[in-house]
Amino acid sequence: KINPDRLWDSLMEMAKIGPGVAGGNNRQTLTDEDSEGRKLFQKWCEEAGLSMAVDTMGNMFLTRPGTDPDALPVYVGSHLDTQPTGGKYDGILGVLGGLELVRTMNDLGLKTKHPIVVTNWTNEEGTRFAPAMLASGVFAGVHTQNWAYDREDAEGKKFGDELKRIGWVGDEEVGARKDKMHAMFELHIEQGPILEAEGKDIGVVTHGQGLSWTQVTVTGKDSHTGSTPMPMRKNAGLAMARILELVDEIAWSHAPHAVGAAGHIDVYPNSRNVIPGKTVFTIDFRSPDIAVIKDMEDRLKIGGKKICDEMGLEVEFEKVGGFDPVEFDQGCVDAVRNAAERLGYSHQNIISGAGHDACWINKVAPTAMIMCPCVDGLSHNEAEEISKDWAKAGADVLFHAVVETAEI
Amino acid sequence: KINPDRLWDSLMEMAKIGPGVAGGNNRQTLTDEDSEGRKLFQKWCEEAGLSMAVDTMGNMFLTRPGTDPDALPVYVGSHLDTQPTGGKYDGILGVLGGLELVRTMNDLGLKTKHPIVVTNWTNEEGTRFAPAMLASGVFAGVHTQNWAYDREDAEGKKFGDELKRIGWVGDEEVGARKDKMHAMFELHIEQGPILEAEGKDIGVVTHGQGLSWTQVTVTGKDSHTGSTPMPMRKNAGLAMARILELVDEIAWSHAPHAVGAAGHIDVYPNSRNVIPGKTVFTIDFRSPDIAVIKDMEDRLKIGGKKICDEMGLEVEFEKVGGFDPVEFDQGCVDAVRNAAERLGYSHQNIISGAGHDACWINKVAPTAMIMCPCVDGLSHNEAEEISKDWAKAGADVLFHAVVETAEI
Ligand SMILES: NC(=O)NCCC(=O)O
Ligand SMILES: NC(=O)NCCC(=O)O
Repeated sequence: KINPDRLWDSLMEMAKIGPGVAGGNNRQTLTDEDSEGRKLFQKWCEEAGLSMAVDTMGNMFLTRPGTDPDALPVYVGSHLDTQPTGGKYDGILGVLGGLELVRTMNDLGLKTKHPIVVTNWTNEEGTRFAPAMLASGVFAGVHTQNWAYDREDAEGKKFGDELKRIGWVGDEEVGARKDKMHAMFELHIEQGPILEAEGKDIGVVTHGQGLSWTQVTVTGKDSHTGSTPMPMRKNAGLAMARILELVDEIAWSHAPHAVGAAGHIDVYPNSRNVIPGKTVFTIDFRSPDIAVIKDMEDRLKIGGKKICDEMGLEVEFEKVGGFDPVEFDQGCVDAVRNAAERLGYSHQNIISGAGHDACWINKVAPTAMIMCPCVDGLSHNEAEEISKDWAKAGADVLFHAVVETAEI
Repeated sequence: KINPDRLWDSLMEMAKIGPGVAGGNNRQTLTDEDSEGRKLFQKWCEEAGLSMAVDTMGNMFLTRPGTDPDALPVYVGSHLDTQPTGGKYDGILGVLGGLELVRTMNDLGLKTKHPIVVTNWTNEEGTRFAPAMLASGVFAGVHTQNWAYDREDAEGKKFGDELKRIGWVGDEEVGARKDKMHAMFELHIEQGPILEAEGKDIGVVTHGQGLSWTQVTVTGKDSHTGSTPMPMRKNAGLAMARILELVDEIAWSHAPHAVGAAGHIDVYPNSRNVIPGKTVFTIDFRSPDIAVIKDMEDRLKIGGKKICDEMGLEVEFEKVGGFDPVEFDQGCVDAVRNAAERLGYSHQNIISGAGHDACWINKVAPTAMIMCPCVDGLSHNEAEEISKDWAKAGADVLFHAVVETAEI
């Protein structure tokens, strides 16, 4: 079994980098804080005897050699970047859980046939640069590196330039190792309420729901809030309001098998006495059913266009992120379930509500995920919380599933 | 008659300072560009023989002496600050129209009994620091200077600190001269469609409609857009959408005697995969009828609270700006109408849809306004446009009304 105190101490130590304003973290991708977090992780890994490689997307691979020179590595990891007002565990638990299992193997003098590679994937959160899971997506061949390098943040800074600026462009070609992976395991907090409500220690993740991000741009006409008569207004803020209501209706029409909302909303010129001439906002639709996602996308476009037509406004829809629903590898999923069973942790199958790097890696290697509960199902919030016992159970199951797959 | 080419050249010269991105201006109050614009205006005024005084709110008073040492000054002016995506005329025409009438008087060797003071009022627009017409409001005793100094922009910078930073805190006590004003005239573009539609050169402004700015803060709970089930969401963005729809309904219920919209909308944390935990937005209601404004404010609070209660969210309302409907001084209004009549310009009475410094100054001195048309009624937009003929007509009427009031 892993050392829960050591794992917890490392989580708390990492959380000191890029602290938030309310107890959580703001360690967004490709910021100075991201670089600092990476350096701490590198230091810990090197102290544990791992050797580092970094690819051209900044993905970090920390290897513990195996005994068989021909055996392909087992990967374990997640991401160290956070939301702007994020928690201490979303992503971090999966990376430091990987580190902890290596430390435990060192303590026990365990050797495995397959190498073990602890991984930190760049820009999982996708807040600063859409889409989410950008670097694991490039690794898996879903996006090209050039396209990824061109992604821009709200200030117009490019991903490629910022990766260079923080000094984490590696020399390994991204994806070079994607056909040489034995398996990959990702431990993550659930970020939803199910496991806590059911009183389960472990979620055995069988599927991940799919996602669609549509950026909507409504163009009206800036004009004076006081002297423009009501019938002459082209209020892009009001059209946005109507589209947000439509999104809610569409998602509810498929509930509980779908969700929908807009997290990102920008209004121009954003002046109290100017009717908004432009709004840009991103609709996030999710479902485990690809047909439902397609239906929601279509209804957004048709309904959104109708709303804007009726108001005499222009509207454009651009897909800025998305992935299909995922079915994880049966063998890896069984390894997770067996580990939980063997260790005596209560468990249940679960569908991931969020996207994860594992969703992309599943395209190129046998992959599975382990989930542990989080308080009130709350995530993407600085108040995100888990108990040390939950972290322990998750990391124990990760340890056993990985070691079993890597073969002693 | 004034020199329309000279007036136009000065307008174009001023527009070079703080250019916008689409042909207009971004010369917001208390920016470096604001300071630069003030210096150019000062230089022009001093070349025209005027002497400058600046008060502790940064209001600029440029005086042309009168022949009677006991006669109180006639004021003429408006503001040089602009919206973030503003036009070249909103405010500027009134200030440079004042300068042009002095230049014309110099050309003609005209002397008046009363001094004439060309004025630039600080922070009329109210975008960077709410409320609008802040410095004329302090001058007229509506706000205290301390309160004004404490107003903060979106970055948390204070009005008082920024006024100091750009070097425009004068040594004259604000409002010291408010009981020694003979009259005040403000020339302004209409910012609405009426004069152009009616084919009139001049609007004789008899009234100004009242305004109410209510800042609404909705507090929900940040959470993950993917893994938070629909029934568990506390989506502050959706509640905002419903309130925006309510605002539109309320304004229409009183149309054409009211308008309403939100120009300012901020969403937190503004991340594509985080359900908004907080939204802050400002509702702008206007009407020439104080009872209608009161009704709209009440219905916003009652209806907004109901929307948020039903969704389990918190809501707060804060009044961040407002003024009652205004009736301008009969004598000054007659002077404007007589001047238009005498000069042979077509004219009609009009109610100002926007707020103006004249609305506050009307509380302390006999005041009136002159309006000229603007293309498509468009203002608070970089594409704001007027013709040189319209500017000429407005400045001619200003010249005559002011000179008549200042007595040759
Ligand atoms: N796990 C997680 O929050 N990932 C970010 C991508 C998503 O929005 O699902
Ligand atoms: N004239 C003008 O646009 N003033 C700004 C204050 C207002 O919003 O009415």
